Amino acid sequence: MPPREPLFSVVARDPQSRARAGMLRTAHGIIETPALFAVATKASIKALPVWLWEAAGVQAVVVNTYHLLLAPGADRVASLGGVHQFARIPTPVFSDSGGFQAFSLGVAFGRSVSKVVRSQEAADGSRASSSAQNGALSRITNDGVQFRSHRDGSVHLLTPEASIRVQHLLGSDLIVALDECTDPLAPREYQEEALARTHRWLAQSIAAHQQFAPETRRRLGWTPALYGVVQGGRYEELRRESARFVGKQEVDAIAIGGSFDAGDIQSAVHWVVEELPESKPRHLLGIGEPEDIRAAVREGVDTFDCVQPTRLARHGIAYGPNLTRLNLRNARYREDSAPLDPTCRCMTCRSGFSRAYLAHLVREREMAAATYLTLHNLFALNRLLREERQRILSLGRSNDSAA
Amino acid sequence: MPPREPLFSVVARDPQSRARAGMLRTAHGIIETPALFAVATKASIKALPVWLWEAAGVQAVVVNTYHLLLAPGADRVASLGGVHQFARIPTPVFSDSGGFQAFSLGVAFGRSVSKVVRSQEAADGSRASSSAQNGALSRITNDGVQFRSHRDGSVHLLTPEASIRVQHLLGSDLIVALDECTDPLAPREYQEEALARTHRWLAQSIAAHQQFAPETRRRLGWTPALYGVVQGGRYEELRRESARFVGKQEVDAIAIGGSFDAGDIQSAVHWVVEELPESKPRHLLGIGEPEDIRAAVREGVDTFDCVQPTRLARHGIAYGPNLTRLNLRNARYREDSAPLDPTCRCMTCRSGFSRAYLAHLVREREMAAATYLTLHNLFALNRLLREERQRILSLGRSNDSAA
Repeated sequence: MPPREPLFSVVARDPQSRARAGMLRTAHGIIETPALFAVATKASIKALPVWLWEAAGVQAVVVNTYHLLLAPGADRVASLGGVHQFARIPTPVFSDSGGFQAFSLGVAFGRSVSKVVRSQEAADGSRASSSAQNGALSRITNDGVQFRSHRDGSVHLLTPEASIRVQHLLGSDLIVALDECTDPLAPREYQEEALARTHRWLAQSIAAHQQFAPETRRRLGWTPALYGVVQGGRYEELRRESARFVGKQEVDAIAIGGSFDAGDIQSAVHWVVEELPESKPRHLLGIGEPEDIRAAVREGVDTFDCVQPTRLARHGIAYGPNLTRLNLRNARYREDSAPLDPTCRCMTCRSGFSRAYLAHLVREREMAAATYLTLHNLFALNRLLREERQRILSLGRSNDSAA
Repeated sequence: MPPREPLFSVVARDPQSRARAGMLRTAHGIIETPALFAVATKASIKALPVWLWEAAGVQAVVVNTYHLLLAPGADRVASLGGVHQFARIPTPVFSDSGGFQAFSLGVAFGRSVSKVVRSQEAADGSRASSSAQNGALSRITNDGVQFRSHRDGSVHLLTPEASIRVQHLLGSDLIVALDECTDPLAPREYQEEALARTHRWLAQSIAAHQQFAPETRRRLGWTPALYGVVQGGRYEELRRESARFVGKQEVDAIAIGGSFDAGDIQSAVHWVVEELPESKPRHLLGIGEPEDIRAAVREGVDTFDCVQPTRLARHGIAYGPNLTRLNLRNARYREDSAPLDPTCRCMTCRSGFSRAYLAHLVREREMAAATYLTLHNLFALNRLLREERQRILSLGRSNDSAA
């Protein structure tokens, strides 16, 4: 990296855990960590106009390389000035590699791979074949992920270099190397093979990143920070090996990937963080349940992204007190004049919207319901992260800024 | 009416036409006329959170008695404090009588009656039978409109008294007497019969209004202003007769109703306004094409309501320069970096959203697209009305406030 402010500095640590509070610096502002990246798959937070992002506590968003690659296309976004200019995004932008979506959307129509496998799903075995046996619609090869578009069936090959090229064209602040996200039920020998591939792809991604960086800097005025992805499934040995490997590469930051059995997230993060350098920021890909966030923060994760708060909102589910879920379709809310959460200071709650009114809008499929609930849910989850940060800061400041 | 500020005063007149600028006073604020009431059928402007209403130039909204009667129910709205409290509506609220919707939605599933019949539709005759022959699903009787709910098939009878009762329960600022909106193709003898019924219903509505007023005033602190509706189809004699009749009743304001052949609006309004008292505000029900608004303002109409700006927005159509329509699904906009209308000062245009980005959101069915376009379209149509008002004001002030 050229000389500049460090990408990341730790400003305080919790002496009781690995939790840390930090600052993640980008050309589009500083992200105070721990932090959540709000999901803006297609360069828009669903149902939340950009004017309300600040009110929702949004510090940064994640866009999806897979989706923007298919529409409107990376070259078009680049020709329209990059994703910040194109979508008038005022915050830092994180883009994923597109690999997970190519695999879960491009592959198995209606049989998508989720980030967390609950035990019943795992037990019925219906998803067990997803990674190895979907050759007909997509294929992991040593070159990358070959997939059919879920939109028009067109065939694409997403290589490590192509993913980095697309993310440079988008002009994201934070970009991610292509990896293979394996099924947690895949056998160990497949996990080893996949991990070796992920590590080879990382080397190729770093080379591509270094190749594209000068032109991107000329075009946009900055270069993205590159995240390498740690994989290894449920195997401690593989997770530690992957973390040691990725931690030593010329990457700016570390992402922790994987489809997890629900109970496995914390232990996997624990193993990985023990092996990682302190200096680099750590992102946990696609995880955002409140309890998972709390646990992962204590294990030393700095940033998160998750569709949950926005997706729940569009399904009429709001976070109530203590981040419990209120399903507003439930008959009990039809005459409930209370706000969603009496302790919440978001615009939806402060405006005096009752559960009864919001339940009416949800039942009537009024679009404003999704906006009111999305703002509230993002605010509520961002509040959790802000409180985690405050807790860490209150435990004492640290001077060790990471270079 | 008890002594108070007059509901309406004229502040300026255009000496070249019947156009006038006025102030319509309600317990929830003053509406500067000519003005558009934004459609908030179910107590929410579709896709526009209430925080953005002011930015869209919304002075008042219209809610639908028919829809709120069926869900969440007028008694529930009343028990939750009335429509302003229930939906946190900061502006004056106009409610229609519910008759038009009971007839067009409750009657003829898939064969709805529109406010303007274009000649092709009229010519093919497919809608010609709507008013007289839909007895199976709804019926106009001398008592009111009997209809089946479009939601669950339940049978309701909307009488003049029931409509007024519901509107008092909602706590609207401006309410409308039940009328029969006839098909423009119905024969003259049916129009006469319907008009006689509309006039009888008006007398019943006035009686109900006077009966409910004291209790409403105790409950909410104000009483609604009552609009009587002028009908009469395409017949000059009936229109003039209706205007003279309604204008003489104890109503606070006049609404002009009807399904119109496209070319008939202006002449119908012209006949009616010639017969109406100057002192009462005039509302043209359900009409909002820019050219129709311009013509009707010149004929002396003060207020309008129309689904067009919000409905077009949800279909990806935005008002471009001079209120032309831009269909953002058109391929030409995919790389168009211009704003929707370079002369527009709405938040969507000022935020720098390009047609290319908005076209992307529309194609991808992103919900924020509807918000950006709804705000813009309402702002654009409100701008037309603001410019009409400015034009009238610039032609000279008038002191004749109407009592």
